[in-house]
Amino acid sequence: MSELSTPQTGSPLLDRCPDSLPAHYYFDPAHHDLELKRIWRRNWIYAGRVNDLPAMTVRRLAIAGENLILVKDGDGTIACFHNTCRHRGAELCSAAETRLAAKLIVCPYHAWAYDLKGNLRSTPYVSVTGDFRKEDHGLFKVNVRLWNGLIFICLADPPPDFERVPDLGAKALDHWPMTELMTGRTMVKELACNWKIFWENYNECLHCPGIHPELCEVVPIYGKGYMAANEAPDWTPASPERGTRLKPGARSWTVSGEPCGPDFPGLSEEEKARGQTFVTLYPTTYLVAHVDYVRVVSLRPLGPERTELRAEWLFAKATLEAPGFDLQAATALVERVVAEDGAASEMNQRGLKSSAFTAGRLMPQEYDVFNFQQWVRRQLEG
Amino acid sequence: MSELSTPQTGSPLLDRCPDSLPAHYYFDPAHHDLELKRIWRRNWIYAGRVNDLPAMTVRRLAIAGENLILVKDGDGTIACFHNTCRHRGAELCSAAETRLAAKLIVCPYHAWAYDLKGNLRSTPYVSVTGDFRKEDHGLFKVNVRLWNGLIFICLADPPPDFERVPDLGAKALDHWPMTELMTGRTMVKELACNWKIFWENYNECLHCPGIHPELCEVVPIYGKGYMAANEAPDWTPASPERGTRLKPGARSWTVSGEPCGPDFPGLSEEEKARGQTFVTLYPTTYLVAHVDYVRVVSLRPLGPERTELRAEWLFAKATLEAPGFDLQAATALVERVVAEDGAASEMNQRGLKSSAFTAGRLMPQEYDVFNFQQWVRRQLEG
Amino acid sequence: MSELSTPQTGSPLLDRCPDSLPAHYYFDPAHHDLELKRIWRRNWIYAGRVNDLPAMTVRRLAIAGENLILVKDGDGTIACFHNTCRHRGAELCSAAETRLAAKLIVCPYHAWAYDLKGNLRSTPYVSVTGDFRKEDHGLFKVNVRLWNGLIFICLADPPPDFERVPDLGAKALDHWPMTELMTGRTMVKELACNWKIFWENYNECLHCPGIHPELCEVVPIYGKGYMAANEAPDWTPASPERGTRLKPGARSWTVSGEPCGPDFPGLSEEEKARGQTFVTLYPTTYLVAHVDYVRVVSLRPLGPERTELRAEWLFAKATLEAPGFDLQAATALVERVVAEDGAASEMNQRGLKSSAFTAGRLMPQEYDVFNFQQWVRRQLEG
Repeated sequence: MSELSTPQTGSPLLDRCPDSLPAHYYFDPAHHDLELKRIWRRNWIYAGRVNDLPAMTVRRLAIAGENLILVKDGDGTIACFHNTCRHRGAELCSAAETRLAAKLIVCPYHAWAYDLKGNLRSTPYVSVTGDFRKEDHGLFKVNVRLWNGLIFICLADPPPDFERVPDLGAKALDHWPMTELMTGRTMVKELACNWKIFWENYNECLHCPGIHPELCEVVPIYGKGYMAANEAPDWTPASPERGTRLKPGARSWTVSGEPCGPDFPGLSEEEKARGQTFVTLYPTTYLVAHVDYVRVVSLRPLGPERTELRAEWLFAKATLEAPGFDLQAATALVERVVAEDGAASEMNQRGLKSSAFTAGRLMPQEYDVFNFQQWVRRQLEG
Repeated sequence: MSELSTPQTGSPLLDRCPDSLPAHYYFDPAHHDLELKRIWRRNWIYAGRVNDLPAMTVRRLAIAGENLILVKDGDGTIACFHNTCRHRGAELCSAAETRLAAKLIVCPYHAWAYDLKGNLRSTPYVSVTGDFRKEDHGLFKVNVRLWNGLIFICLADPPPDFERVPDLGAKALDHWPMTELMTGRTMVKELACNWKIFWENYNECLHCPGIHPELCEVVPIYGKGYMAANEAPDWTPASPERGTRLKPGARSWTVSGEPCGPDFPGLSEEEKARGQTFVTLYPTTYLVAHVDYVRVVSLRPLGPERTELRAEWLFAKATLEAPGFDLQAATALVERVVAEDGAASEMNQRGLKSSAFTAGRLMPQEYDVFNFQQWVRRQLEG
Repeated sequence: MSELSTPQTGSPLLDRCPDSLPAHYYFDPAHHDLELKRIWRRNWIYAGRVNDLPAMTVRRLAIAGENLILVKDGDGTIACFHNTCRHRGAELCSAAETRLAAKLIVCPYHAWAYDLKGNLRSTPYVSVTGDFRKEDHGLFKVNVRLWNGLIFICLADPPPDFERVPDLGAKALDHWPMTELMTGRTMVKELACNWKIFWENYNECLHCPGIHPELCEVVPIYGKGYMAANEAPDWTPASPERGTRLKPGARSWTVSGEPCGPDFPGLSEEEKARGQTFVTLYPTTYLVAHVDYVRVVSLRPLGPERTELRAEWLFAKATLEAPGFDLQAATALVERVVAEDGAASEMNQRGLKSSAFTAGRLMPQEYDVFNFQQWVRRQLEG
């Protein structure tokens, strides 16, 4: 970015209009396989919330073409394995989720049994010969990292340093009671687009006036096509940084602007006043924290042109259980915004497959699209 | 053809039985891609009738894997563009057809606006830098040619000479009021066959006795397996050329042989007497003109083994509006013939995929199948 | 096998734990194509029962990606051809089965007619030139072999020696009235697994205790995970070979153990006492003969990960027609077993696609899985 942005002025705008990623990056199956290998199998991938996985449970997980299981034992320890037995490769868990009766994962085919650390414990009915050593036939392990009540897994070993993943640092949500929150609503959509298209949409607000009229009412700056106050032409480093504030009277992202419950207790005045706190964890997840609820939005590629989009709304237990709590009112605005972004992403996907279109041009306001694309380019390098 | 036909006798029959095209030309995906490139992206492709596209309208068009738009302005000028915005490639038109409110094509994603010649006019919300020039970012244009009220587009630039396309010359239909006709009925079928299979079926009448019993009643020569009088063994250059006449009393291709309306006014006696006038425009279209109506049949490949077949019946406005006009009676015979040809083509497709079948043999009567295959071979050369 | 089994002791157990086939053999499309070529197009493939094909009938047959026809003439002679006409490759028979009116196979497209030996007899409507010789344009023949009332075809020419195919020799079922039996029930299932997975399941009984509780009741040895008595640790060459006997009082594979009809007359006491006689014909078929009925189970690959499984229950005519014969009681046990094996095979298929799984390990008890895999390895060699 150093050669393009203009840090001396404090404006994030690009000082030229760079080319977008090559068009085939968004639909070519061979390129998609490369991204699975270089991006999805090397980075920390969101795999659900700790609170949503009951103790003594095995859950299937499909990520980047891999068939995995998440396992939580009676003490709350979470592990992840490939969903395959070391004998002849049978699937260990075929249901979406199963309860463990004992502290063993038992293959349903020939009853090989593994403990919850993945060690092979028993191989019934067979008389193994000396060339077979149980200790060489444990389950294939996948790295696990818990952060703010979220589970992340990484197929690479060793995995990258997690602390460098969240764009605002691992401490950005420390004032929110993340590990205690409960999931009030989960929405899953399958989008007919490449996963990067959704991220590019996320990274600019030029589309907001045309695509998100209701959101622009709640966050007035979006109605001007800005993501941040310092995008304004009349902005100077001395300007009061109030641009991303919500509309007068609004305190959260709801249709009315009213919070759907009491403020989280530990937030600073600045955290309350700014209306929303975004944290981005490429390639899977972003979080948006408000005074009253938190949202986790995550992506999984299902193919070069298919992406699973998941949105989870997290609330304090007391909020969810308060008399008169209206879940629909709490989630309606964002549901609409997510549906609008999904439709826009699919429209973008359809159009960029024209043989005449080889790459787009980014505008100065698309600095975060550019940053994302530079991140992708670096990942693909090796 | 010169080495195979026998022009000295006037008979069109081949003087030997040449091999048909290699079997894999009809199903191999790589060969199909080559045909898309060498045939479908280089030739003039039928894209509908001028009269059926309202003024101030944008219509989507899918041809040879390309996502295009046809645009007609208020003056009736027709243009064609790739359906992709120059910014980040969003699809300009997602509906099958939309009305234009102003003389602008506006991208629904970030509101970039283009005039109806494709020039980029405005880029709202952005502050472009000097390296971005609007004049370099017009819509990607596709060539358009109108002929006899039909719209043809060509993805190649420069396009080939249109006048050489129709097999009987660009003037063959000059006595028909082509630009004034109205579309009375459109039939669209998806066939499970390669596009060339349908053309081969079109180019011989050996199948007529077995496949088209009703058509053979109306056109008696077809019942003998001939397409033309000079195929008959007893034909000589001195024979009266009356073989393709309709059955006694019949004047058009309807079940009864009765025309469905008055004769078109400008036809010559010969044009009336011959019963049908065929004009062929490879690779997409053939027209059949009768005294009372005209038919446009067109093909689009959807894949190596899937083809869209479209038949349009064109009538004079007065015919369509005449009291007692019976559209069903006017179209029933040909609907049946087209369905029979479609089924025969699918049967041919299924059979030629046998690994034992590497190429067929053409009979002397299949001279026009041979001519078509030679046209294909020439197109594929470079 | 000589280096792995321990023939000196008479035990079939492997003396080490060899690697299973590479994981990609079970799902890679290129490898699957190689298996079609080296295994399915070179070996004798089961194509149905003689008694189930009426005289003067043409039946379609899809095997290993080939579109074939089986033809039975008025004298009961059975022939097999590629389902393609030598003219332009049309499919000769598009229905599942058609009756022949005369002793001719007539192409429905241009009426070329072939006799039931495949010789081209007539080409209506055409005047062939001297370079076309009818005798060069007969139907493409496929080898046919009848054995025990079953039809086998082979796409290779010359085909391999049939007598070497059945694992217990071509005479193993000589005491059963195979050619006279009637098909009482046919079950067809499409399994989401590679064809080899089903054979591996067939070739070991370690899965029996967990997967087939009811079968283990009828065949007690299966409940210990053995296929044969000489797998037992305390077995010696002097042990009485009674391990595969049915449970006390049982005489056939039915839920009750009761036979569903009278014993076949010619069976030896040993054939009656052993409860089941298995004959295996890779790659398509195994037969299980009991005192009262016979079962034919056969496989056809539909793709790398899709397999058609067919089970046919054969009975004496008198058994089928006996008052009170209960077809459901006769077939229920095996229907359940086949469904259990199908589900286990699909579970195995899903699990072995994990990128971490490259090959399994076979246990000493999986000697016949190993034998099957060695057969596959030899077939793939050249």
